Amino acid sequence: MATEASIPALIRRKRDGERLRDEEIEHFVRGVTDGTVQQGQIGAMLMAIRLRGMDTEETVALTRAMAASGRRLAWPEGWRGRLVDKHSTGGVGDKVSLALAPALAACGCKVPMISGRGLGHTGGTLDKLESIPGFSVAQSPEQMRRILEQAGCCIVGQSEELAPADRVLYSLRDVTATVDSLPLITASILSKKAAEQVSALVLDVKFGSGALYPTLEGARQLAQSLVSVGGRLGIRTAAVLSRMDEPLGRCVGNSLEVLEALQCLEGRGPADLRELVTALGGLLLWQCGAAASQEQGAARLARALDDGSALRAFEAMLGAQGVPPATARLLCAGTPAQRRRVLGQAATREELPAPRGGTVRQVEALPLARVLHELGAGRRRAGDAINPRVGAELLVAVGQRLQPGQPWLRVHHDGAGLGDAQRRALQDALALCEAEPFRPGPRVAELVLPS
Amino acid sequence: MATEASIPALIRRKRDGERLRDEEIEHFVRGVTDGTVQQGQIGAMLMAIRLRGMDTEETVALTRAMAASGRRLAWPEGWRGRLVDKHSTGGVGDKVSLALAPALAACGCKVPMISGRGLGHTGGTLDKLESIPGFSVAQSPEQMRRILEQAGCCIVGQSEELAPADRVLYSLRDVTATVDSLPLITASILSKKAAEQVSALVLDVKFGSGALYPTLEGARQLAQSLVSVGGRLGIRTAAVLSRMDEPLGRCVGNSLEVLEALQCLEGRGPADLRELVTALGGLLLWQCGAAASQEQGAARLARALDDGSALRAFEAMLGAQGVPPATARLLCAGTPAQRRRVLGQAATREELPAPRGGTVRQVEALPLARVLHELGAGRRRAGDAINPRVGAELLVAVGQRLQPGQPWLRVHHDGAGLGDAQRRALQDALALCEAEPFRPGPRVAELVLPS
Repeated sequence: MATEASIPALIRRKRDGERLRDEEIEHFVRGVTDGTVQQGQIGAMLMAIRLRGMDTEETVALTRAMAASGRRLAWPEGWRGRLVDKHSTGGVGDKVSLALAPALAACGCKVPMISGRGLGHTGGTLDKLESIPGFSVAQSPEQMRRILEQAGCCIVGQSEELAPADRVLYSLRDVTATVDSLPLITASILSKKAAEQVSALVLDVKFGSGALYPTLEGARQLAQSLVSVGGRLGIRTAAVLSRMDEPLGRCVGNSLEVLEALQCLEGRGPADLRELVTALGGLLLWQCGAAASQEQGAARLARALDDGSALRAFEAMLGAQGVPPATARLLCAGTPAQRRRVLGQAATREELPAPRGGTVRQVEALPLARVLHELGAGRRRAGDAINPRVGAELLVAVGQRLQPGQPWLRVHHDGAGLGDAQRRALQDALALCEAEPFRPGPRVAELVLPS
Repeated sequence: MATEASIPALIRRKRDGERLRDEEIEHFVRGVTDGTVQQGQIGAMLMAIRLRGMDTEETVALTRAMAASGRRLAWPEGWRGRLVDKHSTGGVGDKVSLALAPALAACGCKVPMISGRGLGHTGGTLDKLESIPGFSVAQSPEQMRRILEQAGCCIVGQSEELAPADRVLYSLRDVTATVDSLPLITASILSKKAAEQVSALVLDVKFGSGALYPTLEGARQLAQSLVSVGGRLGIRTAAVLSRMDEPLGRCVGNSLEVLEALQCLEGRGPADLRELVTALGGLLLWQCGAAASQEQGAARLARALDDGSALRAFEAMLGAQGVPPATARLLCAGTPAQRRRVLGQAATREELPAPRGGTVRQVEALPLARVLHELGAGRRRAGDAINPRVGAELLVAVGQRLQPGQPWLRVHHDGAGLGDAQRRALQDALALCEAEPFRPGPRVAELVLPS
């Protein structure tokens, strides 16, 4: 009775721009979790929050209540202070987690990474890992602990038991035009991390034409909200603002991105990927006290990539998450050809020639991702199958000089080939200019640190 | 697919304060009616409308779409221009419809009045009529037409077939704190009247401590919205702003109010009730061209009350809606004692003495209604039974002098009697002052006419 009576009153208060008290927010989230708050009421409350906002106190209470709506992970006492995680707002070609988690493990951290599936244009981190034969993302909290004991890191799917209130709110936000609300985004991201019980967290908030936020300013606001609320929850939180206009690295598409992550884990691969991995890892090592500064942390992480220890942690994680040891070995220590054999390869590789000469000013991420999505690299709705072999390799980098007719993109596909509209969309993604060759700016635009 | 895709886009546009186009509003209302729009989406849209508003064009489109969501009533060609109705925002002791509908019928109008059940403190118009043995409020559109042919008026419950979209939105507004939205209230009221296909409509918008709107200004805004949107729908619409601080008339409670309405239909009864009935009826007769001015319309209506023709129409309506002719006769032409025998009477009548002497400044409607509700005059939730005999008679009027100990209220009840808290609440509803006896101001504060 009390519940039924007070939910409309809470909605009314938020509608009128008032602050909700901690216990009111807890009451609402409990009702969302146990189903006593009607869907229509949740929709109205989400819209009231979207339009009226929430201050930091309210966002902290919302995050805490959502984290408390389900199970919390528990870890051995000895791991305290070393449990870390990373979250990214998502971008094209983002395979950072695949390299960062094992690199952090190689630096002594425990990384219980819970990741998502892409509903966007290309696959998410879980989809990339599932292109490795045998890799299992479904791991119970108990299994996660065993994997962390063996390998120092795991990358798994979100458990139904963790922050169930977030699942309800998240699915409704999508259909009620309430996705882009700072307090709701903050609470959604951090509630899961709070339930993970990590000590330190780093956020990769992307901005640019291929990102959630087109401008640096928008990304900075989210980062500041996350850093401030994360800190209030007792998680040492910092953020990197990184550009997302071009794809990250040279490869887009699930199995191609695994190959590129392996290069990064060998101390090689594209500079921008390595830059972002070491920046994020450096922040985390600094935040959890394993390095004296962000720079020293980044250098420590770079060493783990260069000395093979990160790659060994990756191999251990593959083994612990179901990949047969021989397969994991072949993937981590094999030649490019052996790796391709493990992951499979699309039937057709088609190269696109530069329509004219010039210096590459930009390769737009979004149109590239859209075409790959059409070719089967992403899914239209939850549960759709993905073709892990579909993808594209950039054969040029921004700032580089291209001759007319020189191949600039290699598309991997299994179907009937590229359609005219798709080929046109890809060619349009390539922007050339008349400048001399130049060095592109850094990926990492700014760090956001706790105040 | 198109539906699923565009509802979030519509919510987003309203969220951002943009105008929705007619076809977008129609699309939304169709989805509400056929169930393809999710409850959470309806809640979010209602909140966006509550916070961002809708202009007159949008409100017209919303009303029209809701009216089109179900069946429309159809009437003989010869009735054109004479079909009229009244709607009230609800008040304590409001038995206006019982007198007004037959009085209008006596003036040559056809009055297909669709009324509500009280979920508030005391019963609604339907509950009052159901205290008459045999009266049936459930009438199909075909039956309504036959009753109008016989009696000129009917008062019936809302059909499931009329404006079904309103039922969905109305029930959600209640639990999502979106009741007090001008465009939503306007569309809810007028969609049903538009589906009724009336030519002229008068609104009784109440203000004061016992009304939806505490202030005249709030009531005026709603009245202006209703008059303007009603006109745009082709219904000649006008409104009366009437005070609701004290109960209307002297009697509150279902069967007591029927008795008071009968007095009004005999040209007698409380002055404020007659004032409001003639003001509303006068406006309608003027609006539909049956009188040259509101004043002449009011005088015409007063004649119908005084010459017995309104009472005859009421008797005819009772007969046409299921009351046995002998019962209807006894009720309409009988002595007070015969009428009481038809309607029954509560077991106990308890009189409250004035706690001290003074001039009656006010008898607050709301506390009186609350106590009667507790005694069984109203219902807690839809479907609850009502005791039609529970009620109260005011033995004094505002402005009148009271001696200490003089009875001022007679409570009719069937149970264990008044509790101490109830007696205290009733005594507190009586406000006395030291002034000389005075005449209270009029019920009708203002008329709102089409521009």
